[in-house]
Amino acid sequence: MENLKGACIIGQSGGPTCVINASAQGVIQTALANENITRVLGAAHGIKGVLADQLYDMGQEDPAELDLLQFTPSSALGSCRYKLADPDVDDTDYKRILEIFQKYDVRYFFYNGGNDSMDTCNKISKYMQKVGYPCNIMGVPKTIDNDLSGTDHCPGYASAAKYIATSCMELYQDARVYDTGTVVVVEIMGRHAGWLAGAAGLASWAGSGPDLVYLPEVDFHMDQFLADVKRVYEANGTCLVAVSEGIHYADGTFVSEAKTSATDGFGHAQLGGLAVMLADVIKEKMGVKVRGIELSLLQRCGSHLASKTDVEEAYLVGKAAVEAAVSGMTDHMVGLDCVRDESGYHCQTKLVPLTEAANTERKVPRAWINAQGNGVEQGFIDYALPLIQGEPQRPLEGSLPRFAKLKKVLTTEMD
Amino acid sequence: MENLKGACIIGQSGGPTCVINASAQGVIQTALANENITRVLGAAHGIKGVLADQLYDMGQEDPAELDLLQFTPSSALGSCRYKLADPDVDDTDYKRILEIFQKYDVRYFFYNGGNDSMDTCNKISKYMQKVGYPCNIMGVPKTIDNDLSGTDHCPGYASAAKYIATSCMELYQDARVYDTGTVVVVEIMGRHAGWLAGAAGLASWAGSGPDLVYLPEVDFHMDQFLADVKRVYEANGTCLVAVSEGIHYADGTFVSEAKTSATDGFGHAQLGGLAVMLADVIKEKMGVKVRGIELSLLQRCGSHLASKTDVEEAYLVGKAAVEAAVSGMTDHMVGLDCVRDESGYHCQTKLVPLTEAANTERKVPRAWINAQGNGVEQGFIDYALPLIQGEPQRPLEGSLPRFAKLKKVLTTEMD
Repeated sequence: MENLKGACIIGQSGGPTCVINASAQGVIQTALANENITRVLGAAHGIKGVLADQLYDMGQEDPAELDLLQFTPSSALGSCRYKLADPDVDDTDYKRILEIFQKYDVRYFFYNGGNDSMDTCNKISKYMQKVGYPCNIMGVPKTIDNDLSGTDHCPGYASAAKYIATSCMELYQDARVYDTGTVVVVEIMGRHAGWLAGAAGLASWAGSGPDLVYLPEVDFHMDQFLADVKRVYEANGTCLVAVSEGIHYADGTFVSEAKTSATDGFGHAQLGGLAVMLADVIKEKMGVKVRGIELSLLQRCGSHLASKTDVEEAYLVGKAAVEAAVSGMTDHMVGLDCVRDESGYHCQTKLVPLTEAANTERKVPRAWINAQGNGVEQGFIDYALPLIQGEPQRPLEGSLPRFAKLKKVLTTEMD
Repeated sequence: MENLKGACIIGQSGGPTCVINASAQGVIQTALANENITRVLGAAHGIKGVLADQLYDMGQEDPAELDLLQFTPSSALGSCRYKLADPDVDDTDYKRILEIFQKYDVRYFFYNGGNDSMDTCNKISKYMQKVGYPCNIMGVPKTIDNDLSGTDHCPGYASAAKYIATSCMELYQDARVYDTGTVVVVEIMGRHAGWLAGAAGLASWAGSGPDLVYLPEVDFHMDQFLADVKRVYEANGTCLVAVSEGIHYADGTFVSEAKTSATDGFGHAQLGGLAVMLADVIKEKMGVKVRGIELSLLQRCGSHLASKTDVEEAYLVGKAAVEAAVSGMTDHMVGLDCVRDESGYHCQTKLVPLTEAANTERKVPRAWINAQGNGVEQGFIDYALPLIQGEPQRPLEGSLPRFAKLKKVLTTEMD
């Protein structure tokens, strides 16, 4: 392991979360305080900022504003969804990255993102090793989808889960106010894994949540769905349903993408999203009042409902990434290792090889979903509930959020 | 004025709010403590519960649960949208109401709602006066729409406004995260008045809000709208737009209801709401990435973002209604009288004749909307900002809301 001295770059990538900036804060503040790191550069829009030589000098930021990053949703440095080519096929980007690394004497690279970002991180790491450029490269995990392997959970998930659970609890109160009956369908993010939709089950567990919850881990059957809704509606006069945007039929077709079909009587053209489409089907089949609600971007930027546990862990993975890199570690992602037992919930960081983190998608275990596929089991609650605990003391001005205001001073100088 | 002794009924009506239960709490707790009120009955689903003889004995509730009503969104007693006939045309309902009032010796009636509910209240009041049945009848205002006359503002508005402003601030952070550019359209409630859409302007005022805000007080022009969006997008690379669901063309047609038309090139069939429709028009005309977001029911039940000022005022109007009625007052609604000056914001209750409150719809003054009709002026901010102040210490269990759990014991006994 080399004892490197030089600049570092921190980049944010993929869909933002409530706490990705807490991780950036963990990286930036730890790096600014470290004597081996000569300069802390923030990449504008992730790896695209590296390629474009658009780097912010984080040392010029007001420390008080950096402190506010943990309460500021979305990616403060800007994000991207840029996919690097296979370096064996096209190494143009990699050469450019090396050029920029050399220009600023970058010896540490921290990339904060989900599956695709860990893949980017891994490719850059392997390339730098191949060309013999010493640079310690660490992945910092984030994704509301919680589908990253090698970690108990991902920073960002818990705050989105808390937003979803709280919102569903409130909607449950609202949806049953009239005696005329209504079916409300709530659409929740998560294209391939049901961690977020499952969070609606926390609301049900708390006694004010969806009657039915559908995750993409179980094949969706429209007939069964309609029978479920009908049963609940007939018993209670109302029905609150939570669905993952990723629910799909047995043949893999997303329900949201099913086209109008005269034959099956269920298919509808997509009219503004899955929730509205399912609500329309219910209205047509049952003749009841319906409403479709899409939580949309609100669920990934609702920092006013952030989990304190999540904010702290997000900061921690950033901090741990810098500490590991400075101590000589490279080519790993920081993961979370958690224990849930009688004494409570305990969480610490660990290091996961980037190759392991980059290539698998973690799904909700089937055993945590009920047999009927329309709700979650206690195992899911036991897993998710500790993660959403605690309310950060977010700063307010006039009772509105006070977000970090960064100067974002671009640098083109070597220093 | 008569010094009446007997039972009281409290009913909730119309669309629920975050704080309508705080008003119910104000009525119930003040009434339970008053020696002239022998029994406090809660009407199940407003006036429909009176007609159906479905009344809950509020004296049987756990006082600790009643205390939680102020933190519980939606209408705890259930609501209705039942319109009473003109008593000169059909007095069936009125006779039935009188029968119920006589059965339980009801001498106080409190009705908590918006315009239509004040109309109901007014009709019952006038009928009881006409038939000579002594009963003091008071309206307790609520509506997120804030369009009730005779009061500075309506309990319920401020908490919805705070939800909208906070959510828009978060969306603004999220919507500008990529460098690829996007236009996000947020749809806000308020069919006839722009008080709620204007609240998005609080986010802009706070430096993290919509670039453009459209209220129904100004006629909507699609050409101008598209020109506005294009201008902002070209300058900033992103554009966040807030629109009231009630925006309409100069001929009065709601934009949300405009049908597909081959001639004007703008009309689109409604695809899951106004936001999605406008986003589609922008996509078609500008070829940019778009997203439509409807705040839907979330904005009226988001009690986790309630304004402490709102919660306290909501309680106050309920309390004041009981105190006024017991002191002999009838046929009035409790209103709020507010002063905003150098010394701050001061609010007290006043009494408004029901006839005055029931028949007019209050709109946002034109002077509080900018000349271009795409934003709010400082006058609006000065009006709305004091109303959203303060964070209630809402009780949590496992970091999730703890709502009131009422027993709702139906009574059919005279007592």
